[in-house]
Amino acid sequence: MVSISSAPSALTSRELSHVSAEDVPALAAGAAIFGTGGGGAVYAAERIVERTLREHGPVELISVEDLTEDDAVIMMSGIGAPTVGIEMLSSSAQAETLLREAEIAAGRKITALMPAEIGGSNGVSPIGWASRLGVKILNADGMGRAFPEATMISPNVAGIPCDFAVQCDVVGNVTVSKTIDLKWLERHARASTVASGGISLGAHYLLTSETARGAVIEGTVSQAINVGHALLASSEPVSAIADELDASVLITGKISDVARRTEGGFVRGSVTVTGTGVDRGRLQRIELQNENLVVLEDGEVLASVPDLITLVDAETGHAISTEMLRFGQRVCVLAWACDPLWRTERGLELAGPAAFGYDLPYVPFERKSAR
Amino acid sequence: MVSISSAPSALTSRELSHVSAEDVPALAAGAAIFGTGGGGAVYAAERIVERTLREHGPVELISVEDLTEDDAVIMMSGIGAPTVGIEMLSSSAQAETLLREAEIAAGRKITALMPAEIGGSNGVSPIGWASRLGVKILNADGMGRAFPEATMISPNVAGIPCDFAVQCDVVGNVTVSKTIDLKWLERHARASTVASGGISLGAHYLLTSETARGAVIEGTVSQAINVGHALLASSEPVSAIADELDASVLITGKISDVARRTEGGFVRGSVTVTGTGVDRGRLQRIELQNENLVVLEDGEVLASVPDLITLVDAETGHAISTEMLRFGQRVCVLAWACDPLWRTERGLELAGPAAFGYDLPYVPFERKSAR
Repeated sequence: MVSISSAPSALTSRELSHVSAEDVPALAAGAAIFGTGGGGAVYAAERIVERTLREHGPVELISVEDLTEDDAVIMMSGIGAPTVGIEMLSSSAQAETLLREAEIAAGRKITALMPAEIGGSNGVSPIGWASRLGVKILNADGMGRAFPEATMISPNVAGIPCDFAVQCDVVGNVTVSKTIDLKWLERHARASTVASGGISLGAHYLLTSETARGAVIEGTVSQAINVGHALLASSEPVSAIADELDASVLITGKISDVARRTEGGFVRGSVTVTGTGVDRGRLQRIELQNENLVVLEDGEVLASVPDLITLVDAETGHAISTEMLRFGQRVCVLAWACDPLWRTERGLELAGPAAFGYDLPYVPFERKSAR
Repeated sequence: MVSISSAPSALTSRELSHVSAEDVPALAAGAAIFGTGGGGAVYAAERIVERTLREHGPVELISVEDLTEDDAVIMMSGIGAPTVGIEMLSSSAQAETLLREAEIAAGRKITALMPAEIGGSNGVSPIGWASRLGVKILNADGMGRAFPEATMISPNVAGIPCDFAVQCDVVGNVTVSKTIDLKWLERHARASTVASGGISLGAHYLLTSETARGAVIEGTVSQAINVGHALLASSEPVSAIADELDASVLITGKISDVARRTEGGFVRGSVTVTGTGVDRGRLQRIELQNENLVVLEDGEVLASVPDLITLVDAETGHAISTEMLRFGQRVCVLAWACDPLWRTERGLELAGPAAFGYDLPYVPFERKSAR
């Protein structure tokens, strides 16, 4: 294991009590790793959240055990095309409006936010919203990674209904949706987002101390920060990340082919990695739909959703998102086990290979060897 | 004036106190006349509302003066493509859900409905919803006719903000929109309707005894019923309608050309009427965008929006909607004055010729001669 003695203090304390501006670069790098190729570029969110935390102060990070009966937690996320999000920044009033309307819809005060997905920009932005709004952050998220569909969320696996969802756009339009299920919510949220110009802020899934346990993926905010700190502090970042995540490096090599198209609002295709160094002579294909979904070698599935697959730069360890993959890049393919919730029957039904159209059995991924 | 002695009793009493199943065919025929070519075909609504009134009983028709401080009125209408509405019937629970959610959003009990537009199916359906829901109908609407856009509504002319809008689709999805203005509401309502499969029920504009006066177009429900009764009871229906509406017959003739296309969700084009009988040698062109908008003869504007222009069958007097116009039809072109609200500066800005893209001055239409 790489020495981490030079890392910022947050790394040595895995039980963070607050997230401060100094943690944001690590959070962003870690959230990108958890993005498994999707979840939206973290750069703009990183800049905005860092500045917000310097202005409004650190955010209290609480665990599910810390929740009292007075607490009400809501998931907040950006909705829409990340590419639009880069160009169309959100307004500072947007989060305030969203929280106010969520409280009206919930009929109670919201005391904490949590990311709907820790992967990508949606793992970073909620920290800034919480700082601005003066609420806590639950150290948890709804995916433990990034997923493309609203249905692929932990409370849905746990069978908790989504009573309402609130959206707010940059000019101040608010939409409250009470859909009969998350499939309909996905349709309506996307339609409303398109009507708003392509991007909006959303709040959904009101959780309490009673309902949160077992319905969220715990510890993922601090885990993303820890992974990011390991990446940024180490001279061997790929090994450092792998150790932090208990991940395997499936191959180290060069991208030799990228077959990618944008289809129905999704990035779809595959990327081929040709092994170099000790992996010379090996070839892996990664199937992708926004996120990296399946790794194949010699016709064998090495890893698949809902387990996590991330391509990182072989030198810097930084995650490479699916839309940034290019011929000739030197990469490592990392894979690690998903949260046990996703391995339940309901979890696999919602987010296993078949949910993405692959006629493949799911074989739980376990770390084979540390490298 | 045509004798109306054989007409049903409702006609002789212009101050209706109730709308009953027997009034529905007249209401439907009258609403079609007020549709000025648009507003959706009335046939399906007529059948449904007639049956609903037989089952749930007549609806109390009240005037703005009858409103007390306990009353809260909401506009209800079908949203979306009328063609879809014919095939995809609404569920009986839909109106109940919509009323319940509108009451939650308004924070008070809704005691009466009013049509958003008296023209076309949206002038007929609210009577059925009111019967089913056990609420009153305000003898008024928001247009005094049919218009294609959400902004073209009387409370908007009067400067009353639309605090919220509620939509409900056939499977039970509910959307509450709090948009910053009606242009945004139009975008969001349409997007949500498309996400729901093309048609939904909507409620918007909460009005009270204080705000309703001057913000609605009064008497239009009973006026539509009276016009319909005149049409159905008379042996000279076109004259009967014209007298009832104080309308002029601009031309009687044959449709000699229809140039019509469906564009951006609208029917657009023009229709040419070649005069017959006493009008032989004359030619009029009617410009249309869902509704009939402008009548031209020899380069002169004879009538234009917001005044009302309806093509009726020369024999039966029944309105012909813009999508049903065909070469060879024998028609009369009727025109009559709009409500004074539309002739204000704000009214003309919202719904005058320029609002539809015509570079024409608005010349108020007045009846030139009874025929």
